[in-house]
Amino acid sequence: MNKVVIIGVGLIGGSFAKGIKRLHPEAFIIGFDKNEEHLTEALDIGLINEKGSSENLKEADMVFVTIPVDVLVTELPKILDVINDDCVVIDAGSTKSLLCQSVTNHKKRRNYLSCHPIAGTEFSGPSAAFDGLYEGKTNIICEVEKTAFKLQEKALDLFRELGMRIRYMNPEAHDKHIAYVSHLSHISSFMLGKTVIEEEQNERDIFDMAGSGFESTVRLAKSSPEMWTPIFEQNKENVVKSLEEYIKNLESFKAMMEKGDFEGIYDQMNNTNRIKQILKGIPITKTLN
Amino acid sequence: MNKVVIIGVGLIGGSFAKGIKRLHPEAFIIGFDKNEEHLTEALDIGLINEKGSSENLKEADMVFVTIPVDVLVTELPKILDVINDDCVVIDAGSTKSLLCQSVTNHKKRRNYLSCHPIAGTEFSGPSAAFDGLYEGKTNIICEVEKTAFKLQEKALDLFRELGMRIRYMNPEAHDKHIAYVSHLSHISSFMLGKTVIEEEQNERDIFDMAGSGFESTVRLAKSSPEMWTPIFEQNKENVVKSLEEYIKNLESFKAMMEKGDFEGIYDQMNNTNRIKQILKGIPITKTLN
Repeated sequence: MNKVVIIGVGLIGGSFAKGIKRLHPEAFIIGFDKNEEHLTEALDIGLINEKGSSENLKEADMVFVTIPVDVLVTELPKILDVINDDCVVIDAGSTKSLLCQSVTNHKKRRNYLSCHPIAGTEFSGPSAAFDGLYEGKTNIICEVEKTAFKLQEKALDLFRELGMRIRYMNPEAHDKHIAYVSHLSHISSFMLGKTVIEEEQNERDIFDMAGSGFESTVRLAKSSPEMWTPIFEQNKENVVKSLEEYIKNLESFKAMMEKGDFEGIYDQMNNTNRIKQILKGIPITKTLN
Repeated sequence: MNKVVIIGVGLIGGSFAKGIKRLHPEAFIIGFDKNEEHLTEALDIGLINEKGSSENLKEADMVFVTIPVDVLVTELPKILDVINDDCVVIDAGSTKSLLCQSVTNHKKRRNYLSCHPIAGTEFSGPSAAFDGLYEGKTNIICEVEKTAFKLQEKALDLFRELGMRIRYMNPEAHDKHIAYVSHLSHISSFMLGKTVIEEEQNERDIFDMAGSGFESTVRLAKSSPEMWTPIFEQNKENVVKSLEEYIKNLESFKAMMEKGDFEGIYDQMNNTNRIKQILKGIPITKTLN
């Protein structure tokens, strides 16, 4: 690995850069970002060796495209247009169907590996990047059979070095399931934050009463709207369905409360406690707080 | 402080015991618990010096009643019946109106200080207790004017030594506000867990795709149904109202998605990002994971 290009030097791209620098000190990392301030910051803190110019893409061995999914859909085909035949292009988008469709007939489709590393924090920008973000995390790879074998190998070697575990999935299944375990959590958290902020407008000092339970549940409401709006847009159908089921469960909980069925409420909570065992299997980012 | 009685030697009572033992090594701590296993465990791990007998209550200087709020309402008057005149009885219930009403005409009302320390984790039982749980946390005190001044002072001295900050509030305001910043978070989390578990019944391996964002949002769904069912029951009216507003916000988010109003969705998330500044003021329990 000689020349690595990172397009989008934020939390995700920057954390790849940090991991690569540790594992491959010889790698020369070139950064692109439409936000000039972020790009300068990435250079200043040593995430990248150089700001990129149009020439650099042609010479790259590996390109990470870590930008919001709406821009990804329009940029990925253009990036594939200019790279060389031995270069592997990797993305990290949270939606996969539209993106895979956008390059399905591209003549360089075999140079693209469609990835979704299940890793992140609620922070963004180059300063949020850290080495170790990907340690123990799952990387979901879609349509692996459409990527040239040698290029798969190059990318997978790096993912293994970074400590990631790999899961293969088709883009449609990915988008359906991720709506539940990721996209819905963000909406539930954003709307909880909104509800409490609205109540605060009537009642001052309400946040003086908030503890770490509230903080945990509302943490994702700190997330970037630039990143999340296009995710919801691209995964609209699945997200709406998961939201419907969530609202139905909340309505039923409210109805039980109203009619005083607290045995039913106890049972629902008791059954949902099963989440304890489930969560034991999820690798947690330890450096969050 | 010589004789301290802890009724309910779980996370909350046990953490008071640990703090008191550090600050007042001379204190003799006597424990009660309807769960005999927990009581033995509390003795074994040194949370308490002795298991309690009916005689001990009469001799206590300070009694902590840290039990679920349904039992609290029936037990608190009985406890006040038997304590001596210089004893202060402190609770830690998450609902305050019904409890304050239950002792409003008690002849020993002045011996009771109505407290709600905003502290806790999703774990329970004696082994979950730790010294430092109350450091930097808010303790909401209700109807402080109804407690004998000398007894207020005794309790407040200890709270200050434990590093707590004090807020005074009437029980009705407490119950109204806490519905938003605590009770609603628990329901949103429990129902998120339920929704995802239901989806998992159709689709295996869904949790392989879950990351730390989901873990954080669903963390409170690990909480104890024994503790939370009576809280929801006692604060039914406020909780239902907060739940209505939460569902209304989710419905409106869903409607915006369905009609493709992603500018509106961006704006809502962007406005709710204000939670970042708000959360900076909330003391977080660092030892959670």
